[in-house]
Amino acid sequence: MPKTGKLFIVGIGPGDLRQLTLAAREALKEAEIVLGYKTYLEQVAPLIAGKETQATGMMEEIKRASLALSLAEEGKVVALISGGDPGLYGMSAPVFEVLAARGRPPSAPLEIVPGVTAACAAAARLGAPLSNDCAFISLSDRLTPWETIMKRVSAAAEADFVIVFYNPRSKRRKDQLALALEEVAKIRPEETPLALVRGAMRAEEKIILSTLKERAQIAKAADMASLVIVGNSQSRIFYGFFLTPRGYGQKYELS
Amino acid sequence: MPKTGKLFIVGIGPGDLRQLTLAAREALKEAEIVLGYKTYLEQVAPLIAGKETQATGMMEEIKRASLALSLAEEGKVVALISGGDPGLYGMSAPVFEVLAARGRPPSAPLEIVPGVTAACAAAARLGAPLSNDCAFISLSDRLTPWETIMKRVSAAAEADFVIVFYNPRSKRRKDQLALALEEVAKIRPEETPLALVRGAMRAEEKIILSTLKERAQIAKAADMASLVIVGNSQSRIFYGFFLTPRGYGQKYELS
Repeated sequence: MPKTGKLFIVGIGPGDLRQLTLAAREALKEAEIVLGYKTYLEQVAPLIAGKETQATGMMEEIKRASLALSLAEEGKVVALISGGDPGLYGMSAPVFEVLAARGRPPSAPLEIVPGVTAACAAAARLGAPLSNDCAFISLSDRLTPWETIMKRVSAAAEADFVIVFYNPRSKRRKDQLALALEEVAKIRPEETPLALVRGAMRAEEKIILSTLKERAQIAKAADMASLVIVGNSQSRIFYGFFLTPRGYGQKYELS
Repeated sequence: MPKTGKLFIVGIGPGDLRQLTLAAREALKEAEIVLGYKTYLEQVAPLIAGKETQATGMMEEIKRASLALSLAEEGKVVALISGGDPGLYGMSAPVFEVLAARGRPPSAPLEIVPGVTAACAAAARLGAPLSNDCAFISLSDRLTPWETIMKRVSAAAEADFVIVFYNPRSKRRKDQLALALEEVAKIRPEETPLALVRGAMRAEEKIILSTLKERAQIAKAADMASLVIVGNSQSRIFYGFFLTPRGYGQKYELS
């Protein structure tokens, strides 16, 4: 009887080992082969010592997903790792897109292990920036047309969402964040809180808490390891914290 | 010298013990007193055995936040627990709103421990529903005017966001989800994927994967422990999975 494989798609969170869930640790432990973008493999290195690994590059999500599926279907226990949560701009999409293209469900069991997404890690460092409705927008136009992205930025600003920008800037894409923030600044006032969190909860963590007025500076400081958050009309900064009120003060005595 | 207290605001994730991060477990271990809504205290009971706890009710976030701050400032190590992630509709907002009203920063150290938010837990059960830009909207009009909420629903649907509804329905609020889905159905076609996940990753988990055409049934099935996800124009259902393509198929050979 052939050995039964399994594919785990594992969210490893912001990159600090203390921020993995127990389920994620157990999936890594059970895996015979771990696949992932090399930075993520390095982040969990102590948890996968001695295991076979396959590192692939930044743009190779489809290759990685396809390989992970094939290995699991051949009988291997495979962990395909994803920074943050696999469901939000992570490795779940390429796996299911490959399956959809193949026109059949996976023949090996598949389990998605959720993780702490970058927005939640960044929010934990800033105070309470996401406490009202928010829009998550990736500024990468590699797979989504730029017009669609800008339409979303504009709609989110108009409807007073807190806006969270994933993938704000890369070596190839230098202008998107500046353009998006310019669009937001047409609608939100200059004093709106604007924060950049780079490498949240890792040794190299860097936080800039500022306002829309300083958007040019924030746009220059961002890179692929950064997350950028713009407040809504009620957000404010106090004592170094970014607060988007849920609105308790309108209803309750706060003390 | 007075003992130094500390306030941890701890995200416990979807409610299964395997889904807490190591940092969350350590914060609970370090805490002398654990405060929270009683359902959440029950979910982590094995991790806080023998500790002092204070359960408060569903509408008592401000009372709970205020008490947690005061206890930490008196020298106690306090864990204030939040289902999912504290930053997304969790306990971070009431704590910082109380601090803002008091007009001073906390006099004891404060650490936010992020968790797996409900959207990520639900997505892990469904496939890849959140793989493109998404809008998170709470349908509770306790603190946000209903007009503002509906404006956001409409804007999110128009701009082709995947929409995630938190707090879709409660005993007091029976109609909001039906109204919100009706608004989405004016813009998105009837075959758009629509999913409800109740109690994700817990023993009582219940999943309904359907389409906007069945919105009346979904609206009736929802409660406060549910999360509801509506796909964007590209989302589809295949073999029991909810897929929102990231768009790899337009650029790469999928196989």
